Amino acid sequence: MTYHARMRDIEPIRWQDDHLLLLDQTRLPQVEQWITVRHCRDAVSAIREMRVRGAPAIGVTGAFAVALAAQDNPSKTMPTFLRTLEAAAEAVAAARPTAVNLGWAVARCLEVARQCSSPAEARVRLLEEACLLQVEDVRANKALGAHGAALIPDGGTVLTHCNAGALATAGYGTALGVIRAAWDEGTRFSMLCTETRPWLQGARLTMWELQQLGIPASLIVDSAAASLMSRGEVQVVLVGADRIAANGDVANKIGTYSLAVLAKSHDIPFYVAATLSTVDMDTQSGEAIPIEERGASEVTNVADHAVAPEGISVRNPVFDVTPFSYVTAIVTEQGVARAPYAPAFRRFANRARR
Amino acid sequence: MTYHARMRDIEPIRWQDDHLLLLDQTRLPQVEQWITVRHCRDAVSAIREMRVRGAPAIGVTGAFAVALAAQDNPSKTMPTFLRTLEAAAEAVAAARPTAVNLGWAVARCLEVARQCSSPAEARVRLLEEACLLQVEDVRANKALGAHGAALIPDGGTVLTHCNAGALATAGYGTALGVIRAAWDEGTRFSMLCTETRPWLQGARLTMWELQQLGIPASLIVDSAAASLMSRGEVQVVLVGADRIAANGDVANKIGTYSLAVLAKSHDIPFYVAATLSTVDMDTQSGEAIPIEERGASEVTNVADHAVAPEGISVRNPVFDVTPFSYVTAIVTEQGVARAPYAPAFRRFANRARR
Repeated sequence: MTYHARMRDIEPIRWQDDHLLLLDQTRLPQVEQWITVRHCRDAVSAIREMRVRGAPAIGVTGAFAVALAAQDNPSKTMPTFLRTLEAAAEAVAAARPTAVNLGWAVARCLEVARQCSSPAEARVRLLEEACLLQVEDVRANKALGAHGAALIPDGGTVLTHCNAGALATAGYGTALGVIRAAWDEGTRFSMLCTETRPWLQGARLTMWELQQLGIPASLIVDSAAASLMSRGEVQVVLVGADRIAANGDVANKIGTYSLAVLAKSHDIPFYVAATLSTVDMDTQSGEAIPIEERGASEVTNVADHAVAPEGISVRNPVFDVTPFSYVTAIVTEQGVARAPYAPAFRRFANRARR
Repeated sequence: MTYHARMRDIEPIRWQDDHLLLLDQTRLPQVEQWITVRHCRDAVSAIREMRVRGAPAIGVTGAFAVALAAQDNPSKTMPTFLRTLEAAAEAVAAARPTAVNLGWAVARCLEVARQCSSPAEARVRLLEEACLLQVEDVRANKALGAHGAALIPDGGTVLTHCNAGALATAGYGTALGVIRAAWDEGTRFSMLCTETRPWLQGARLTMWELQQLGIPASLIVDSAAASLMSRGEVQVVLVGADRIAANGDVANKIGTYSLAVLAKSHDIPFYVAATLSTVDMDTQSGEAIPIEERGASEVTNVADHAVAPEGISVRNPVFDVTPFSYVTAIVTEQGVARAPYAPAFRRFANRARR
């Protein structure tokens, strides 16, 4: 089944009748193919294989995965239903370790299930919760975009890394949400997108989104960023996040920390855009964030073609941690936080609860 | 014609009977294929298409290209011979703009031709000169390696970028020459090699050389360097150079400047290894070094497979400039230079002339 996202807003996750549809991000931009997910284990595979990726997007997918697990769970009594559901939920939460949104969404769904009086009720409520999470994420991204738009300078160039767009979320985007909001307000600027090895999210996904949005953008290799900064060709760096610790340390795609250090050394502001669901107040600092290492073949092969000798050793950490001291500000749906971050996050969380 | 470099030292450029053989670096490491070059224009194409690359290697190839131009030059009198030769030499020198070795080698060959009394003598002398240049480069690399070996810490990890090995030179290597010399002296360490987008010289060529040398090495994506530095996993950064200005500013593969800034910010020494033929005393500072920009397809396609949407804009500067203030030391065949660089280079050049 294919769907032409070109015609309307990209929403990479869709619930249809009794199943989930995911826009397969391993095949973009050459092929726009939707995959059908009918069982929890298939959602887990899709997350692990990065057919859906981006912290908020895997959070929402995780919620639908738990809803699917509930549909497949034949238990008639709540204790056995919950035991089976919890085992499935654990597998969902473990599909990828770094983004906090996945564990956060799964925990929120389990909380909902525990409040139900019957498996039948839980099956309905879990699907509603997943849909709610999806809607909330789009709404939060739009609010975040509105708060962050003023940070984008008219006539400047904004460098972004990886993909923190509609594809990384339930829709609209975090870093690209700020970009869209600024553009819609009439600010004019251009984008520089790092290709983001090894998975090329920048080349494949961000360039595709910006092309559809009609925002001028140029692609560069990751290591060209510093040189362009030194030539005065970058005014702002703006990225998303996979997990933000209570102190403001930011885990994001490998290469983010590199850009943060380079931005600081060139006096360029370095902004992070993320919804509060990405802030993990239980993790005090970045040192405690688990960093996923993925397989060697992501580096040694591109499009199934070997680009390195056989039998070599590879290090493939796919995230890094940027200490808060390199982060100029963090844009959330409740406003723009600056250091010290912990009190700002607490203030925002309280405001969100009202 | 294929040749198994595994059996002995890699020498990517060979003169055989009446023609030049180049190990095709666009096809390594999967295919070890030698291409036959019989005319100057084919040597120019090979340099432009990066079948041979690396500043010293294209310098030596440029000298053989001029020798081939002399063979093809039917002029019977010196004035017409020189006019035709100079036109060919100009095309050779213009094949790639950043590495100074190419222009330097071509100028040296023209000087030899001008001292000859007949075209016949010039044809012989130019071929001898190209062979001399080749031998001198290997000898200089070995001397450079011996001077630099002490900079490699026992038990540490050395990060290198791109390929400054035997393949980038007439043989032995500059940055990898230092690595080989240190290893041969009994120092034990491991290597981290950046893959070096867009052309993947690190993944394809440096990993291949180190595999053959038996020196332990791991491949990383370019943007992972900063994160590994912050974890204390890099003790030294060591790279080659395409042109060094009189003040010590270093033009080298895109991403070198990035690593230099990151090394400084993590208190890691940043060394450059290059023969004096790469030092351009006529260029006062890095600002005056021409930076080659290559085609978009190098970034948008990997192994002929598109990895970005069609019709996008790409910036592909393939070199950058690292200001001397980021360079801890420059290792040459005459010794290790430290700032201020200009007097050190002058001292070394005088010593070389003796």
